[in-house]
Amino acid sequence: MDLSPEWVVGFVDAEGCFHVSLQCHPEMTAGYQVLPEFVVVQHQRDIGVLHALKRFFGCGVVRRNHGDRYAFRVRSLSDLEKVCEFFFKHPLKTKKNVDRRKFWRVLQIMKARRHLAASGLLEIVDIVVTMNRAQRPALDKIKRELQVG
Amino acid sequence: MDLSPEWVVGFVDAEGCFHVSLQCHPEMTAGYQVLPEFVVVQHQRDIGVLHALKRFFGCGVVRRNHGDRYAFRVRSLSDLEKVCEFFFKHPLKTKKNVDRRKFWRVLQIMKARRHLAASGLLEIVDIVVTMNRAQRPALDKIKRELQVG
Repeated sequence: MDLSPEWVVGFVDAEGCFHVSLQCHPEMTAGYQVLPEFVVVQHQRDIGVLHALKRFFGCGVVRRNHGDRYAFRVRSLSDLEKVCEFFFKHPLKTKKNVDRRKFWRVLQIMKARRHLAASGLLEIVDIVVTMNRAQRPALDKIKRELQVG
Repeated sequence: MDLSPEWVVGFVDAEGCFHVSLQCHPEMTAGYQVLPEFVVVQHQRDIGVLHALKRFFGCGVVRRNHGDRYAFRVRSLSDLEKVCEFFFKHPLKTKKNVDRRKFWRVLQIMKARRHLAASGLLEIVDIVVTMNRAQRPALDKIKRELQVG
């Protein structure tokens, strides 16, 4: 299955997700590990599309997500930059483009290794709470911790 | 917002739905009305995409679906044929293409007005139960009724 750039933009506009999670990691200076990822989930009947996306971007993995759903996932910083750069050239048409821009800012903070200090981490939390329309109360808790610390 | 054919294919591969419902309608010969529709649902923040799809296909309506979600909906037989014909030229890449083909067969039965007799309606039910991965026990009930009648 060959994918065209425009098809990929349309599909990701609908099904793609730029997500950043923070995991408690006491050994790290700021106490948290930042885990950015780009994910596309599909029912197993369309696992072929996920493999085609993997070939298209030349990175990532296809693995079972849960139950009968599979995910194409990109997690390494350099691969995520590559994915974002594709969407610079071929912008998303939905409001997901705003998330993609915010996601890029998180990657740049990480690239500069500023996420290893509380101030950079706080900056990331402030970006992430405004992404993906999701309520994420855990991030508010982390923010309070970082401000106090 | 201008949409390209390939973007539309990608987006519909992810978010589009070809759906056929049967509504009890005692005044009709076979007792049921067949209601085919093509639907794309989005959160209200992306209502612009739905209006762009409406302009792209040159048919359909954009209305509130429920809560903060809106839908682009095409319901007339001739407009649905137009939508399907677009996807003949620009095939969907996911298994939704199979549903689109089945949907087309339902439209052709309706166009020939065969859905007005029990035999045609039964043919439609047999197609629809295999669409969209959904369990639809109500259709089994209708099928039994039609077979008995």
